[in-house]
Amino acid sequence: MVRLLEMRVLNVMTDLNGSFSVLLTDMDARVVLPIGIGPFEAQAIAFPLQGETPPRPLTHDLLKAFCDNLGGTVKKVVITDAREGVFYAEIHLERGGEQIVIDSRPSDAIALAVRCGSPIYMHPKLVEFTYRYEDIISQSQ
Amino acid sequence: MVRLLEMRVLNVMTDLNGSFSVLLTDMDARVVLPIGIGPFEAQAIAFPLQGETPPRPLTHDLLKAFCDNLGGTVKKVVITDAREGVFYAEIHLERGGEQIVIDSRPSDAIALAVRCGSPIYMHPKLVEFTYRYEDIISQSQ
Repeated sequence: MVRLLEMRVLNVMTDLNGSFSVLLTDMDARVVLPIGIGPFEAQAIAFPLQGETPPRPLTHDLLKAFCDNLGGTVKKVVITDAREGVFYAEIHLERGGEQIVIDSRPSDAIALAVRCGSPIYMHPKLVEFTYRYEDIISQSQ
Repeated sequence: MVRLLEMRVLNVMTDLNGSFSVLLTDMDARVVLPIGIGPFEAQAIAFPLQGETPPRPLTHDLLKAFCDNLGGTVKKVVITDAREGVFYAEIHLERGGEQIVIDSRPSDAIALAVRCGSPIYMHPKLVEFTYRYEDIISQSQ
């Protein structure tokens, strides 16, 4: 029985090379998991966090609309694994008591979770890819 | 009773400014409707047309997976309107005999249609925004 670690989005950052990352932190703000994402996905995650509504629905808004209209509920998303620097995720849906798990890029899963208010979890084995919260905060100041 | 005009994707193009457009043409290749889209959407439409599979599923592949897993079928997508240079579309889903219509950007609707093999339609009033097929082809040569 693996105990998943609940995470929340701390921030979406860009580095000097213009690469984007989404930073996840646990609910006690002890560790931070950075996941590299594309600029489109960065925007898709940042918009709802900033309470901004784009002039037109983005693809992830459409994804939520599909889920809502087809009777699905996003129960949770899970960052499941990392291999060769690539992170993997699952989106756990429920429809009429049926559990559905869909493989996803973490960026898509997180962009959907922040729209649905769904919890975000990390597999504990990914702790090796995390940084101490204090170190990340001091860097970004 | 409006008779929708069936269209297919002719091409995805970029102009000298680096702006992207998807070109839709009717089944008799008489007219072409260009719709300006973003670079991400251009890639999302071009990949399946070129028979290419991206290393990781794109957001529109996830959209199709949601539809499939939640028992939905994309019956058709319709380019419904254009106001102030902005095009509008609908995605028509069916689930268990229920008809569901979801508003969408044309780029998302088309990217989904090419993945699902669903027909693409244009409202006849949009003919005013089309060009003669011969003119477009001669331009792109």
